[in-house]
Amino acid sequence: MTETDNSTKGSYVTGDEFNRDMNYIPDRITRNGGAPVLGEAAGKTWPVEAGRYRLVVAWACPWANRAIIVRRLLGLEDAISMAICGPVHDKRSWTFDNGPDGKDPVLGYERLQQAYFARYPDYPRGITVPAMVDIETKSVVTNDFPWITLDFSTEWTEFHRDGAPELYPEKLRDEMDEVMKLIFTEINNGVYRCGFAGSQAGYDKAYDRLFSALDKISARLENRRYLMGETITEADVRLFTTLARFDPVYHGHFKTNRSKLTEIPVLWAYARDLFQTPGFGDTINFTDIKRHYYEVHTDLNPTRIVPKGPDLANWLTPHHREELGGNPFGDGTAPGPITRTEEQVPESGRA
Amino acid sequence: MTETDNSTKGSYVTGDEFNRDMNYIPDRITRNGGAPVLGEAAGKTWPVEAGRYRLVVAWACPWANRAIIVRRLLGLEDAISMAICGPVHDKRSWTFDNGPDGKDPVLGYERLQQAYFARYPDYPRGITVPAMVDIETKSVVTNDFPWITLDFSTEWTEFHRDGAPELYPEKLRDEMDEVMKLIFTEINNGVYRCGFAGSQAGYDKAYDRLFSALDKISARLENRRYLMGETITEADVRLFTTLARFDPVYHGHFKTNRSKLTEIPVLWAYARDLFQTPGFGDTINFTDIKRHYYEVHTDLNPTRIVPKGPDLANWLTPHHREELGGNPFGDGTAPGPITRTEEQVPESGRA
Repeated sequence: MTETDNSTKGSYVTGDEFNRDMNYIPDRITRNGGAPVLGEAAGKTWPVEAGRYRLVVAWACPWANRAIIVRRLLGLEDAISMAICGPVHDKRSWTFDNGPDGKDPVLGYERLQQAYFARYPDYPRGITVPAMVDIETKSVVTNDFPWITLDFSTEWTEFHRDGAPELYPEKLRDEMDEVMKLIFTEINNGVYRCGFAGSQAGYDKAYDRLFSALDKISARLENRRYLMGETITEADVRLFTTLARFDPVYHGHFKTNRSKLTEIPVLWAYARDLFQTPGFGDTINFTDIKRHYYEVHTDLNPTRIVPKGPDLANWLTPHHREELGGNPFGDGTAPGPITRTEEQVPESGRA
Repeated sequence: MTETDNSTKGSYVTGDEFNRDMNYIPDRITRNGGAPVLGEAAGKTWPVEAGRYRLVVAWACPWANRAIIVRRLLGLEDAISMAICGPVHDKRSWTFDNGPDGKDPVLGYERLQQAYFARYPDYPRGITVPAMVDIETKSVVTNDFPWITLDFSTEWTEFHRDGAPELYPEKLRDEMDEVMKLIFTEINNGVYRCGFAGSQAGYDKAYDRLFSALDKISARLENRRYLMGETITEADVRLFTTLARFDPVYHGHFKTNRSKLTEIPVLWAYARDLFQTPGFGDTINFTDIKRHYYEVHTDLNPTRIVPKGPDLANWLTPHHREELGGNPFGDGTAPGPITRTEEQVPESGRA
């Protein structure tokens, strides 16, 4: 749900605290378009259907990265195709500038905004990724990111690959919802709260909140391999996308600099463990990630110069987390390699 | 020689590379005002005289920090008094805003610019620290920082304390000049070249130059305790002032982020060794250092928000460099504690 500048400025900072606009197109994609397995349908429901929707993402965006990972872990690549925006958008929209002729080859659009306008000609809010787009009408179905991934897990089951992990296991949901709430408000959003603070006092408070949450999560992970225990769940996916951006971007750009991730031993080993697991590290494009934040947020980085560091080779060093036991995919299996057409992660972007 | 904004913008960036204006008031203070022991007198010479001059500094400025350290190591506090500017200056000048009534109590000035104008009413260049000011005429004698400290060592000898170290030993000068040239062009200035690069290409090049020099210096220090061998020299002072600012400022603000200093084992141990040596760490005011860069360079940090991190307690951890042998002060002794009147380094600013 990384938004374009326009809306960032319009609705993000109230007083000295950053607040994320959480108004999304609330539609859901459900089995047969029926009542969702989880939660209530706040908008329309659309039927799960292989080949019907296109997931629009950017490698750079942590919220889109979450959807990329879940889709891959569940093996939904054949059922849901993916359109990839470039790292740098203008005030109006994310753009498909990396596609042939600067267009997404399936939708034929140059900018994601066109898919939003096809749905709502006067769409007033941020043009965000991830977005699910109906390919026939070329219009956005939903950009309500927290539901997109949970619905991948619970509504798209018939298209899951063999050996797909259970990312939102029924018996863990209550505890998981609590953990994911902490991750969202204090960490995923916590880094933005530091970076977009409107005053020194707002920043100082945001910094303390963030690191207090990271300490809490680090303690939780000291003796268990994953957030919910022995196997990977969506809670890990959600934490991972922020951790992957921590040293390359947030540490300097958002001033979340009590320490680098590499200096928080438990979290750093945990992050490497995930990074080295198929479906995680292979979706991380450090080049796009750095370009996005440093080039788009000119109010924080007027020169638009992108740091060359940090050295990222250490993401591939041994983490020893396997000594804690557990098995990333439980009774299931790891996903195969990322598919060729989506392998747009430049080599240089990989650790 | 940290300059005010005015001149930074006027003369620092040519093309995409940062270039430091090296035109200073070239006067020297020499024994009896005679020909200097070192080099040539490019300007006037003024006589060494206890109580006659005031050294104007800011804790924040690395070039002034160098003079603060050398003065302290040599025990020149009683011969040369010190005026301390606040960390944040305006476009015109460093100011004495920390003094009583916002003035330096000896010179009676609110801003250092007044001392420059007392010497040259139309002084056109940057108002820099360190500066030596003649107390009677309240006018600047020199701001030619490389000579200020070398003259402390070679011209002010009659006022050195008992046990003062030899910071520029005659038999080492040729090699030392080479080492200090590398430190100056590649490291002291190298961090600024990264931060004030006018383009991505300029920055990329500056980053490579900086880290290549740091690697070189790190290799030099692997098996010798100090840059010139067994004891501290001015070369160490010059390197130290940049290393002390590396993680708190340069890493994020100037994007010198291949790694933190804490991640370069030899240099980090070396820096801590010096920090824990009387005369070094007790002149480091991390609070002023961070405020200076983050609040003054609004072209790099428009929000003026100062990062809370990094955690600096690690500066006091064991460095084990004593295992390399050597003795910081050679046949001499360590300086005593910093004098009361100059102990304006806030406790919070100390590691």
